[in-house]
Amino acid sequence: MLERIRIVLIGTSHPGNIGGTARAMHNMGLADLALVAPRCEPLTADTVSRASGADALVHAARTVETLEEAVADCTLVVGASARSRTLPWPMITPRALGERLPEELAAPGGRVALVFGREDSGLTNAELQRCHAHVHIPTNPDFSSLNLAAAVQVLAYECRLAWMEHGETPAASAEKDDAQPLASHEELEHYFTHLERTLIAIGFHDPAQPRQLMARLRRFTLRARPERMELNILRGILSNTEKLARPEQPSTGERASGEPGSD
Amino acid sequence: MLERIRIVLIGTSHPGNIGGTARAMHNMGLADLALVAPRCEPLTADTVSRASGADALVHAARTVETLEEAVADCTLVVGASARSRTLPWPMITPRALGERLPEELAAPGGRVALVFGREDSGLTNAELQRCHAHVHIPTNPDFSSLNLAAAVQVLAYECRLAWMEHGETPAASAEKDDAQPLASHEELEHYFTHLERTLIAIGFHDPAQPRQLMARLRRFTLRARPERMELNILRGILSNTEKLARPEQPSTGERASGEPGSD
Repeated sequence: MLERIRIVLIGTSHPGNIGGTARAMHNMGLADLALVAPRCEPLTADTVSRASGADALVHAARTVETLEEAVADCTLVVGASARSRTLPWPMITPRALGERLPEELAAPGGRVALVFGREDSGLTNAELQRCHAHVHIPTNPDFSSLNLAAAVQVLAYECRLAWMEHGETPAASAEKDDAQPLASHEELEHYFTHLERTLIAIGFHDPAQPRQLMARLRRFTLRARPERMELNILRGILSNTEKLARPEQPSTGERASGEPGSD
Repeated sequence: MLERIRIVLIGTSHPGNIGGTARAMHNMGLADLALVAPRCEPLTADTVSRASGADALVHAARTVETLEEAVADCTLVVGASARSRTLPWPMITPRALGERLPEELAAPGGRVALVFGREDSGLTNAELQRCHAHVHIPTNPDFSSLNLAAAVQVLAYECRLAWMEHGETPAASAEKDDAQPLASHEELEHYFTHLERTLIAIGFHDPAQPRQLMARLRRFTLRARPERMELNILRGILSNTEKLARPEQPSTGERASGEPGSD
């Protein structure tokens, strides 16, 4: 179970925090680290010092340019967030996150990403809206900003407790044999791109005046946890709608399989 | 409740860890920090950098020479320990610790110390045997040594969760109105000193061949959580025993009230 939990750090500024994160992960039995557009050299003497023997995780980390790439294959993406937002998003506690993990990861192809933002500014709204849910570590309201590696430590600790309690074979897995695979993050993003293009085509959505339309549709869709099959149906509907809206255009070769490419 | 939880760091080597501890504490609403014989200058640029705004806790920290002094007024002393010992001690999980705190701190005069050892060697056996219980943060057996500030972070997080769940008025407090005050750590240590001296006097105990006798008696006594009144009775018994064992000696002026002094 723990090997299918990925820690994603976005725009980290301090190598020491990357080292501290690696140590916290390895301490709790996590190994999959992804760095999105780090704002520092990830592997420095500070990294190795704070990693205290866990720098192999930094060597093995994947460094990518966007959150998309880091979580493309994940079925559940949870962002660590301190702030309450103008558009409320499903918010869970670290403990509730831990309790959800065994069933999440028992689903076919299940993979979970825990996403942590920049030391100074956290996650952007766009990044937060790419998450199924936000997790908030309870803190002193007068001093709420946790050190990055400390925040990873707390969530990794909850992951380990959940794993210890439920082991590799949660009770729910037996009932899940006929469950369909959930859509991956990448498939969902292809869908949202397709959806937005279609809404523009039918004159329902003006990107110059977005009014949180896409954010609301994202929230709704992510809350439903679509299966891949369901997403294919939705994309079929969008393709047909697009054809009606722009009958003069040739088919764009839109694919519903979720492969990267035309959109 | 949180203001009656003390974090005690013994023999810390790295100022950064003291700063990181202060930040973790302040994030979780803890404020009472004690440093026992630090092996570094506690307040350096590293401390302030890692404290990230919480260095007031380090300024306010009490620095003392011994664990005794740091926890003298505490009714429950819990040591963070990674190792299993030759003499097994009551061992609790961080979560179970959190669950115990509200009732512990609702008791008259209740005060809890969470004790953390050296970065390189943890707590000594003598220090561990001064604790009522040991708390073990579950870790990857292949990489079990947590960063000091990260360990404080996890336990402080459990303290905060317990406080959030139970608030300041646990249900048990109403039933506890007629409860006797528990013995403080200092009173217990006076008792153990008195007990050992008495056991030597009666020829039952040879400090040159201790065979864990005192450790076993400590474990037994601490498990019982003696009230102050009970300890006074036990000390009265010891005083009388001593008089019988050494009838030639004048009274040592032994006091049963638990004040520091003759022993």
